[in-house]
Amino acid sequence: MNKLNEQANGVYIISATPFTDSGELDLASADSLTDFYLEKGVSGITILGMMGEAHKLTEEEALIFMQRVLARVNGRVPVVVGVSHASHRHVERLAKTAMDKGAAGVMLAPGPNLVTDPQVENYFLSVAHLLGGEVPVCLQDFPQSTKVHTSVPVMLRLIEALPQIVMLKHEDLPGMRKLSQLRSQSETLGLRRVSVLVGNGGLFLPQELARGADGAMTGFAWPEMLVQVCQAYAAGDPARGEDIFDCYLPLLRHEFQYGIGLGLRKEALRRRGAIKSAAVRQPGPVLDSIDQQELSGLMARLERKLAEKGLN
Amino acid sequence: MNKLNEQANGVYIISATPFTDSGELDLASADSLTDFYLEKGVSGITILGMMGEAHKLTEEEALIFMQRVLARVNGRVPVVVGVSHASHRHVERLAKTAMDKGAAGVMLAPGPNLVTDPQVENYFLSVAHLLGGEVPVCLQDFPQSTKVHTSVPVMLRLIEALPQIVMLKHEDLPGMRKLSQLRSQSETLGLRRVSVLVGNGGLFLPQELARGADGAMTGFAWPEMLVQVCQAYAAGDPARGEDIFDCYLPLLRHEFQYGIGLGLRKEALRRRGAIKSAAVRQPGPVLDSIDQQELSGLMARLERKLAEKGLN
Amino acid sequence: MNKLNEQANGVYIISATPFTDSGELDLASADSLTDFYLEKGVSGITILGMMGEAHKLTEEEALIFMQRVLARVNGRVPVVVGVSHASHRHVERLAKTAMDKGAAGVMLAPGPNLVTDPQVENYFLSVAHLLGGEVPVCLQDFPQSTKVHTSVPVMLRLIEALPQIVMLKHEDLPGMRKLSQLRSQSETLGLRRVSVLVGNGGLFLPQELARGADGAMTGFAWPEMLVQVCQAYAAGDPARGEDIFDCYLPLLRHEFQYGIGLGLRKEALRRRGAIKSAAVRQPGPVLDSIDQQELSGLMARLERKLAEKGLN
Amino acid sequence: MNKLNEQANGVYIISATPFTDSGELDLASADSLTDFYLEKGVSGITILGMMGEAHKLTEEEALIFMQRVLARVNGRVPVVVGVSHASHRHVERLAKTAMDKGAAGVMLAPGPNLVTDPQVENYFLSVAHLLGGEVPVCLQDFPQSTKVHTSVPVMLRLIEALPQIVMLKHEDLPGMRKLSQLRSQSETLGLRRVSVLVGNGGLFLPQELARGADGAMTGFAWPEMLVQVCQAYAAGDPARGEDIFDCYLPLLRHEFQYGIGLGLRKEALRRRGAIKSAAVRQPGPVLDSIDQQELSGLMARLERKLAEKGLN
Repeated sequence: MNKLNEQANGVYIISATPFTDSGELDLASADSLTDFYLEKGVSGITILGMMGEAHKLTEEEALIFMQRVLARVNGRVPVVVGVSHASHRHVERLAKTAMDKGAAGVMLAPGPNLVTDPQVENYFLSVAHLLGGEVPVCLQDFPQSTKVHTSVPVMLRLIEALPQIVMLKHEDLPGMRKLSQLRSQSETLGLRRVSVLVGNGGLFLPQELARGADGAMTGFAWPEMLVQVCQAYAAGDPARGEDIFDCYLPLLRHEFQYGIGLGLRKEALRRRGAIKSAAVRQPGPVLDSIDQQELSGLMARLERKLAEKGLN
Repeated sequence: MNKLNEQANGVYIISATPFTDSGELDLASADSLTDFYLEKGVSGITILGMMGEAHKLTEEEALIFMQRVLARVNGRVPVVVGVSHASHRHVERLAKTAMDKGAAGVMLAPGPNLVTDPQVENYFLSVAHLLGGEVPVCLQDFPQSTKVHTSVPVMLRLIEALPQIVMLKHEDLPGMRKLSQLRSQSETLGLRRVSVLVGNGGLFLPQELARGADGAMTGFAWPEMLVQVCQAYAAGDPARGEDIFDCYLPLLRHEFQYGIGLGLRKEALRRRGAIKSAAVRQPGPVLDSIDQQELSGLMARLERKLAEKGLN
Repeated sequence: MNKLNEQANGVYIISATPFTDSGELDLASADSLTDFYLEKGVSGITILGMMGEAHKLTEEEALIFMQRVLARVNGRVPVVVGVSHASHRHVERLAKTAMDKGAAGVMLAPGPNLVTDPQVENYFLSVAHLLGGEVPVCLQDFPQSTKVHTSVPVMLRLIEALPQIVMLKHEDLPGMRKLSQLRSQSETLGLRRVSVLVGNGGLFLPQELARGADGAMTGFAWPEMLVQVCQAYAAGDPARGEDIFDCYLPLLRHEFQYGIGLGLRKEALRRRGAIKSAAVRQPGPVLDSIDQQELSGLMARLERKLAEKGLN
Repeated sequence: MNKLNEQANGVYIISATPFTDSGELDLASADSLTDFYLEKGVSGITILGMMGEAHKLTEEEALIFMQRVLARVNGRVPVVVGVSHASHRHVERLAKTAMDKGAAGVMLAPGPNLVTDPQVENYFLSVAHLLGGEVPVCLQDFPQSTKVHTSVPVMLRLIEALPQIVMLKHEDLPGMRKLSQLRSQSETLGLRRVSVLVGNGGLFLPQELARGADGAMTGFAWPEMLVQVCQAYAAGDPARGEDIFDCYLPLLRHEFQYGIGLGLRKEALRRRGAIKSAAVRQPGPVLDSIDQQELSGLMARLERKLAEKGLN
């Protein structure tokens, strides 16, 4: 498999981790979900991220799931593996195992309790030193979840110091100015241009593509929208991109709700035939009948809109 | 002026506080903004809330602004006044002054550093005791900003204990299940049905109206959308409500960004002729040229969509 | 081994987890540390807590360490095993494994992101249901680390609902009134009197024993102080307890510093011959020469004071 | 009055703000409290800080209290005035008013919601620009309360850029390494040596004096201890400083409790005759009978210890 590099673009879908109703890993659904993502045209797959419930897996389960997905993908697209962990040793072992098994790169969020720029910078420098130069890294900037804020100057210094950082998962919120600053200051300084893929479900995908993002790395249950929007922007037709985006926005906003959003996402994937059960490992969201009806209503409206616009 | 009561519904717009470019109170714009809101059909106006930059006003400025708005409104709709403050004495004085000047009620968020249910409950009980039974209270539940979480059981106990609580500004996020639980548990217990108006810019307004909200109390710069959606739901035509909502959703989501959102909202109000300057008191967001163009693009798309749908 | 019950008192030391300088588990030091604690007169040992760096161990390492300590203790005192984890399944497996291997009970902190009383209560009810009635539970209330606040009413309801909760690790800060309220309200309600052991290094141990605590569950590197203070209070001689406590207070306060405190504690344990290396798994505190000298100064002062008072 | 400068040292006591039992400003007690502080030998007085309940005063009250204290001090020691506020305009006006009335300088904490180094740096640069070069500034670094973290590089850049920053109130916790780094890196860079006074009640005062602090700026109700410890260190007798410190440490640790600590501090000041009422403005801590007895016990122990050591 080729390694992840700065040219990465398009949609790297954040994969859910499917469980059975009783909470066991569902490897058959891992296969069908992988197929679903590939059919929708994703450029890559990111597994074992936060929305992949990685922190609720044992290390053994993580390894089994990783191998299953890598086998199913079979080199067709790059697979990025989330390796964030409280212990540097664990990050190192997970990352090296992932690369050995065929991952294209790893995704890394900062550890907890980092509150100043030097602390954040040192965190990434320390881990990168352990990983060495051969493991391509996607740096995840997701302060709503990690409570750690990575400033633009820190990002620029890390990009300069660490050639293995090839990608940024841009997930700060609000974060659009940050993205613009990163691009403009990086250019002013003559730094490498890394790949920037956006998160947050894609809630600002059109604006972020206009500001210099290369695509999305997020898990919205309708990946085809993300793919089409990225393609429209790449083709120089942003208006078409926004038209498509707007059709899905009510559902996107709905799935964006922290907490219950994961339950809604898995249920949408289940309804779309991608996985067999929408179960989230406990503690986690469980949809009630009102949630289900609300989702049904939004999905029916989407179908109607796509039909009206001839986009289905 | 009649006092605020449990039958309140429709749109209570959260008013911006207009400043001149140099940061002085702009009272002429206070008038034009009030007119703007009234023309758009709001049912009430809420001043001196968080998005009204109340914490950046001196007490004297707050009083001047309050009196100006009350005079301009001149009893046509109820005016609710935000009175949240670190000191109970201050809350009491602000609330009584507001009522003396003709406010219909006050809005109150919990103080800082309340971390358990009994602490939150005692906070509101203490303040309500100071205010007495003659000051109608809108309880604001906005944990993203206050960091204080008010559970459904606490709300129900407060509604039972304090007849002066007539309204809830529902602004938890995600918060839809909380709204459903509040309505169903309140009914099961045979409690008074209070007015529930939703915040967060109205990001989930259609779903929340379906779950039992009576309207919106938020400051989206296109109040006519909020008004029309509420009217459609009240008229039994939720599909029409959602159609209108969806047209504005890209802009609503855009304005929803914490921090810069206030700058975008004031700029939109300025472009729409409601106020003379989009200035936010410092420290606060300042739009750059990319932000301005982005906003222009979204506003142009809105115009086109409304025209297509015959909604303009 | 007898199971943990409500009569537990004295000092349940929070055990460090010893590593070699290169970060491997140091099982020989696990033995010597266990011996050290037992020689100092502790009534119990708690392993795999937060200060035991449990979150930096693999599950396999945790199991190896647990079995080593259990074997060394060999039933002389009860061993409590920390089982907090993001996934209920993991808590359940860890707890059942621990009990199978001979633990006396488990310690459980609430999961992340619980912000209201009902959420905290439901968390413990859910986990307790999974664990069943045969696993004695020490509920850990440590909001500075977990960011979760457990109110007195929630504790009382849990004590009433769940006979398996036999102990509370009281570690809120400030938390003395909470402790008094728990004792008085529990008595008023006629509830079971559970064991309450205090944390935070023992920073308020004398006051907390006076307010109804039964002892300490914390990891101060001079466990003999904790033991002697508890014995003095149990013997009806609080003045002697406070005299002893005060000698150690400068060091206790020093070790109490979050973050670097763990590094200082392990270094003190190393200097006292309890473990071979003071290494903390990375990322974690590393003492510099100023830190070392400062610690030396405080330790020398302690020796002099104990000699003066005839307490050595 | 001479202005605050980099040579400031010793104890700048953080003054309480005395209220009557009913919560009115108690100006007679403002006088007696000022006298009390001066009699204990403080080098300066800081008013309207967080422990001075500044956020619970109206601007008018703040001005009245400030003028009363300035008149009573009458130039005998420098008075520093806290001017932190959500609005830059307010900071500017408060600061200029304070200087006009005879303050020696102002104390400034960062505004809320600053999460990266550039944001913190820009905050202080913006405010300093408004204040101009004639207002000496004490930068307050108190992240436990403000939630804002000021890194050492930011402090150094601010010291270099802004000659008006003459003092740092060092109140990070743990913060000893930060203090050492600030001193060593400042020297390496050849920067101005600013005054550093420590907060947190003085919990680490001896260690911090050894690491380069110039004194304390905190509000412990026994200022004579802070004064004597600083004098002992200045006289080259740290052992004597630590001996004195250790006598008071049980009470210092007791008063250090966030929240209830302010109630304990005011009650101690009341018992010592410095103020007439221990009232804290609501919402705020109210001592119950157990709290009162506990405080009595600790105060009696202090008296005995000081008598034993001939320090009374």
